[in-house]
Amino acid sequence: MSAPPHESRFRTGSGIPVKAVYTAADRPSDPDTALGDPGEYPYTRGIRPGTYRDRLWTMRQYAGFGSAEDANARFRYLIANGQTGLSVAFDLPTQLGLDSDHPLAEGEVGRVGVAIDTIDDMERLFEGIPIERVSTSMTINATAPILLAMVQVAAERRGVGAADLRGTVQNDILKEYIARGTYIYPPRPSMRLVTDVVEYCRRALPRWMAVSVSGYHMREAGATAVQELAFTIADAIAYGESAVSRGLDFDEFAPQFSFFFAVHNDLLEEIAKFRAARRIWARLARERFGARDARSMQLRFHAQTAGSTLTAQFPDANVVRVALQAVAAVLGGAQSVHTNSKDEALAIPSDEAARLALRTQQIIAFESGIAATADPAGGSFAVEALTDRLEALTLEYLERVESLGGMVEAVETGFAQKEIQEAAYAYQRSIENGERGVVGVNRYASSADGDAAHRISIHRLDPAVAARQIDRLSTARAGRDAAAVGRSLAGLESAARQESNLMPSIVEAVRMRASVGEIADALRNVFGEHREAVTI
Amino acid sequence: MSAPPHESRFRTGSGIPVKAVYTAADRPSDPDTALGDPGEYPYTRGIRPGTYRDRLWTMRQYAGFGSAEDANARFRYLIANGQTGLSVAFDLPTQLGLDSDHPLAEGEVGRVGVAIDTIDDMERLFEGIPIERVSTSMTINATAPILLAMVQVAAERRGVGAADLRGTVQNDILKEYIARGTYIYPPRPSMRLVTDVVEYCRRALPRWMAVSVSGYHMREAGATAVQELAFTIADAIAYGESAVSRGLDFDEFAPQFSFFFAVHNDLLEEIAKFRAARRIWARLARERFGARDARSMQLRFHAQTAGSTLTAQFPDANVVRVALQAVAAVLGGAQSVHTNSKDEALAIPSDEAARLALRTQQIIAFESGIAATADPAGGSFAVEALTDRLEALTLEYLERVESLGGMVEAVETGFAQKEIQEAAYAYQRSIENGERGVVGVNRYASSADGDAAHRISIHRLDPAVAARQIDRLSTARAGRDAAAVGRSLAGLESAARQESNLMPSIVEAVRMRASVGEIADALRNVFGEHREAVTI
Repeated sequence: MSAPPHESRFRTGSGIPVKAVYTAADRPSDPDTALGDPGEYPYTRGIRPGTYRDRLWTMRQYAGFGSAEDANARFRYLIANGQTGLSVAFDLPTQLGLDSDHPLAEGEVGRVGVAIDTIDDMERLFEGIPIERVSTSMTINATAPILLAMVQVAAERRGVGAADLRGTVQNDILKEYIARGTYIYPPRPSMRLVTDVVEYCRRALPRWMAVSVSGYHMREAGATAVQELAFTIADAIAYGESAVSRGLDFDEFAPQFSFFFAVHNDLLEEIAKFRAARRIWARLARERFGARDARSMQLRFHAQTAGSTLTAQFPDANVVRVALQAVAAVLGGAQSVHTNSKDEALAIPSDEAARLALRTQQIIAFESGIAATADPAGGSFAVEALTDRLEALTLEYLERVESLGGMVEAVETGFAQKEIQEAAYAYQRSIENGERGVVGVNRYASSADGDAAHRISIHRLDPAVAARQIDRLSTARAGRDAAAVGRSLAGLESAARQESNLMPSIVEAVRMRASVGEIADALRNVFGEHREAVTI
Repeated sequence: MSAPPHESRFRTGSGIPVKAVYTAADRPSDPDTALGDPGEYPYTRGIRPGTYRDRLWTMRQYAGFGSAEDANARFRYLIANGQTGLSVAFDLPTQLGLDSDHPLAEGEVGRVGVAIDTIDDMERLFEGIPIERVSTSMTINATAPILLAMVQVAAERRGVGAADLRGTVQNDILKEYIARGTYIYPPRPSMRLVTDVVEYCRRALPRWMAVSVSGYHMREAGATAVQELAFTIADAIAYGESAVSRGLDFDEFAPQFSFFFAVHNDLLEEIAKFRAARRIWARLARERFGARDARSMQLRFHAQTAGSTLTAQFPDANVVRVALQAVAAVLGGAQSVHTNSKDEALAIPSDEAARLALRTQQIIAFESGIAATADPAGGSFAVEALTDRLEALTLEYLERVESLGGMVEAVETGFAQKEIQEAAYAYQRSIENGERGVVGVNRYASSADGDAAHRISIHRLDPAVAARQIDRLSTARAGRDAAAVGRSLAGLESAARQESNLMPSIVEAVRMRASVGEIADALRNVFGEHREAVTI
């Protein structure tokens, strides 16, 4: 009885050749410069000396569906089960700046995330949750300024100052054009909005991460680990340069940059990827942007296990995939981790599946022992060699982006999109021709595996959500000072036609209970829409 | 929201202090001597240069319950799902040399393993399985000579020669007195039987592993990783010396020694443990036993995930524990792995749970990439430091055993038992006082976790198994040449009173269809029974 061949595994998930044996000869020529101790430049071994000893990573499960109450109940459930941070999923209309009663929102209200129309919804979302004690991450981009303003105003109404809020807005528009698709405006005004948030957070929300530069969605779309690193860091460079060109010093805003990566199957490559990311960013920050503040050089990141690796066949097997990926995230030194639920390939996670995903992180934290020492893989001949290799390949890619004129140009000309498409095609083909193994799909496929998928109980969206949400929006509109709303929106539009930071006008409109759609429309009037069709 | 403290994790699972940071300064002073390349003495990095590239570990799930047909069906199910080796669990009567109709067997027939009474059962067990192509491991000790003889005769009846058979008999009696309890005879005649098997295999079954020196059960009983290593290796020394004192050369039999370890929660310690085990054995083989054949120095091992770490609460969480432990086994270079089923804390695994356990290994093999390179943790500052530490502590323990006169004496005086009991007590207390975290038990305990345990469908033993088995045994007895059976048993008894190897007489009795209980009784007449009460 012998197992099927696994020759394809002699390359990493990204296609980098893996040697049969790594020895001391494969370690970097100058380990002192390349590694440093944990908490020391270039932070290859981690951004803090204590790593997880004094503070575990934040266990932050991306969640949200239905109305604000539905999402609130799931948040409380996760917190009751030990989750230590929040991560809000918004529905597509909210992400695309459409109110729940917009014709294009039909069928999408509350489907892939929570529906938020006005500040009233945001208050309901945080009902009973100590907003000043939990950090909140929001996956929101084109409408990031609006939702951030809503959090601020919701806190303000509770007497919590903006300066005390901790959290993250994704606010990474470039990758939306490349991979994720929830853009509204053309790239240039979108870059202005990103930079407005960066500038505003520095002043008003100093503990808030103003941008979460995200490789996750590109990786999920089929990018290699190298492309994920390169395009994410190139995006970060673009945001950094935009802020610098507005007259900000890098050290004034870079400590409020964070990153968001996927954590895929290849354990060694993924550990190496995170270590390479830290080294590349530290060197870039110092050498290119002249950073002097250590916090500007420290790459902080959230990692989410790779949804694209999960199979609809035999969902229980996904628990294994997620556990291995989460180990890579922790060995890679993530500050924050989302572990996918086993049923995520099929639906919004059920309560029990969501609890198991969280338990996965807790078992790693409390039972595996890997949180007891910094960078446990550090020094490994294989991991150090792969770290070096990923760094070198990423730097090559960054040079190509540079030669195109930077990431905004690389996005506008479709360079990044095309590169990722090619990688995705090669990856898919390697599965289809059996070179790359997927257990239950092209290795050990079994009809019992398919049957198991049909038996699990999956979460079903309450069909009444949309009607209720639309009703609420009408009530909110009826109960506000219409003239004041109009004035605030006119003020925003006028600010948009000038050079000034739009955040104060957006906060004002939110306070007047203007809706996400109304605020987004005011900006549409000035910026127009990006021409590629958005599929929702 | 912050997580509960996890200070206890600043020691390994075995209580070895873990440093906050390991650096190059923590690596062994002479890495060339301490490591060697994979496939090179002292085999710290693995026993073969190709490691898993040219041959994956054997996926070998310990299984068996009910009658031979029941176990056969499970074996075929596992093989159909990609299992690459067999591992037979026998019921307690079979392990204790009692026939199924023995009064003490009541309630135990087919309960924790398959019931085997005569060669007829053994033939049924392998029905439709290509015995010459699959390696078979048998967890059998006091009656190892009998069950090994049965495999040989079953193969012979199919025209498969003994020289072509591949597999393992556990045949490790010393750890039965320490931790597992299925001994029959006193230690000294038991050592003779172990050695008879070793000597016989060398001659008759050259591809068969004559002993699987097992730390697993000691670890499960509460031993630390160091005790597991020390007592297992001390047992191996005892078997080695016994064979040498019979006039065999170490290189004649040591290539047929294998080992069996637990793989527990602490990822780094467990990887280090396996690496230390290889180095210790290689040096012992060469320096103490004068080995010249590399195969005598190469420690081959099977690893089983630690059943004692699984919780009855929220069985799905056990999938995560098993996955992490299996990663440690593979990073540690196991030749063969058993992954526990999530319901193993509650019952014999259901079909679906058994399939998931197997899928866990397959995902690690085909999706995680860690099988692509040898000893991926090699060079890691933390893992190398822990490897050194475990080696040093194990050598200290070995010296204590030596000073007591060796392992037979350490067992007879209860030294090993007492040491393990103390470790078990300390471990249990650290869970009870909350110092050591167990998710769902003393971290994040939730009533929902308890509920989940009640909902899983567990395997139930067919209550008719015992009656059917007893009926079969009567039929077998009625259909054989009673006089020939009597002669073979008398011949065995007479051989036992002399010095000669008992295996040929046992094989002859098996051929005559003598039962396990009858053969064991013939030896009881000569050797007597060990006086500690056996609880079955």
